[in-house]
Amino acid sequence: MLTVLYAGEAGEWGEYAPALTQALDAAGVKARLVLPGAAAPESVDYIVYAPTGPLSDFAPYSRAKAVLSLWAGVERVVGNQTLTQPLCRMVDEGLERGMVEWVTGHVLAQHLRLDFWRGAQDGQWRNDQAAPLAAERQVTVLGLGVLGAACAGTLAGLGFRVTGWSRSPRALAGITCLSGPEGLQAALRGAEILVLILPNTPETENLLNAETIALLPKGAVVLNPGRGTLIDEAALLAALDAGALGHAVLDVFRQEPLPAAHPFWAHPQVTVTPHIAAATRPSSAARVVAENIRRGEAGAPFLHLVDRARGY
Amino acid sequence: MLTVLYAGEAGEWGEYAPALTQALDAAGVKARLVLPGAAAPESVDYIVYAPTGPLSDFAPYSRAKAVLSLWAGVERVVGNQTLTQPLCRMVDEGLERGMVEWVTGHVLAQHLRLDFWRGAQDGQWRNDQAAPLAAERQVTVLGLGVLGAACAGTLAGLGFRVTGWSRSPRALAGITCLSGPEGLQAALRGAEILVLILPNTPETENLLNAETIALLPKGAVVLNPGRGTLIDEAALLAALDAGALGHAVLDVFRQEPLPAAHPFWAHPQVTVTPHIAAATRPSSAARVVAENIRRGEAGAPFLHLVDRARGY
Repeated sequence: MLTVLYAGEAGEWGEYAPALTQALDAAGVKARLVLPGAAAPESVDYIVYAPTGPLSDFAPYSRAKAVLSLWAGVERVVGNQTLTQPLCRMVDEGLERGMVEWVTGHVLAQHLRLDFWRGAQDGQWRNDQAAPLAAERQVTVLGLGVLGAACAGTLAGLGFRVTGWSRSPRALAGITCLSGPEGLQAALRGAEILVLILPNTPETENLLNAETIALLPKGAVVLNPGRGTLIDEAALLAALDAGALGHAVLDVFRQEPLPAAHPFWAHPQVTVTPHIAAATRPSSAARVVAENIRRGEAGAPFLHLVDRARGY
Repeated sequence: MLTVLYAGEAGEWGEYAPALTQALDAAGVKARLVLPGAAAPESVDYIVYAPTGPLSDFAPYSRAKAVLSLWAGVERVVGNQTLTQPLCRMVDEGLERGMVEWVTGHVLAQHLRLDFWRGAQDGQWRNDQAAPLAAERQVTVLGLGVLGAACAGTLAGLGFRVTGWSRSPRALAGITCLSGPEGLQAALRGAEILVLILPNTPETENLLNAETIALLPKGAVVLNPGRGTLIDEAALLAALDAGALGHAVLDVFRQEPLPAAHPFWAHPQVTVTPHIAAATRPSSAARVVAENIRRGEAGAPFLHLVDRARGY
């Protein structure tokens, strides 16, 4: 009988307790699921973790075979010096589908100018203002991990001209794949709609800044469902005010919840959504956790193991 | 060197001149493109035609090998007694793509509640209000012709639960296909988002009326990029006012342009778009025209040749 510690957000225990129990059962893993305090740390076999949970010192969990994050982003835990156990990030199919739907919906909304049409209800028949076709629209996706690749593929399937960029070279059907610093410049030039789905690492911090924004075509639209740290906020606001950028749709922020006084809320060219693009669904996330515990017990490699040197 | 007469709408010459020049060039057709008056009628080899253009007497164009319509509908020219040349209608891939993009964009916008989020910029962090996944959302498409089937297939590809309905039975991969009167009732029940892409026939007139609206779940959204005649307008407005329907996005109307005084314009739960879902695009239409001229010169059969007896 394994001991699995739930160190996720306390308020989500009500959803995760039945989801994890069911998933462990379905995976054929015999385990008791406990909350912190209900078991001695040295008796814990696996830790289910979220940065909004209670755990910050992993040292007492001397027997734990893995820390299984419920979050896709692990930047808040990867540098924790007490964490010596293998760390796995969440790659949740529900999370991927949510991200694809958010990105596809907002790209199409910008492409079709839905905000403009929602406001154009004044009785004027503007039928000479139809959008160009997706085939005439250049979308660039920065980040070709699981989520970025899924979004890029869906957009290409809808007919958009899609360029993808990643740090190391990738090859994806129907997508112009670029990489490295020169590739980034080429990816930004001509990007009418830019989607940021990069992880938060020292290399990606402020990747979108005054210099890189200047490479985008005038009136470009920026979507950020990735990480708040990817964007130099002052540079973004200045570019929107100057008309260099047309609009920004932002789902993630350096500080969350985004403070009520933050200028993003009131800016007419910014749409704020409250970190809803890629919500982890307890049912599908629990299946990923259970599968990794099954693998750990079977001596199989963990899924979505974090490379501590790269940080994701 | 062929002579190709542009007898389309004068106001669209600015777009069609470069599009046709480029398409003819790409098709390897050597031709000069002229406006009426710039060439003797008997010197014209092909006529590019729109009913909103200047041409009504085809008799002087004694050498013309074909009249190539820029419009899909040829009902305004097919009965013209002076027209003895082969007549080809427009089947523009851009039109289908435009329809798919409009439908997919508006379905996703309703699914993700983009209007709500655009309005929720007051500093409140509502991150417990993420949309369900498309896999939990029922979309019904009425009409499974070329355009309806393309839309239904794209929506299913995005993960929506899609039911399609047509008068006679159809089978489409990934789509629950229903037909006939009982099938219509089943298709409407449970349709959280309803898309109308039916043709205008006596059978489809007022298909969406008080009785059929009553079959939809409370708060359902109606999208109509099909025909204005499909909807009983008074019944639609009454259902929106009563809260039975949540929203309507309408692209086509019984009278177009939609009169400025029509209640649709001012209704907060109606989004009017001005018949832009399936617009013929000069770039793709020009390719169809150029391909038909290439075929005419090569002795190959014309594409989309109108059967004068059937009228289309």
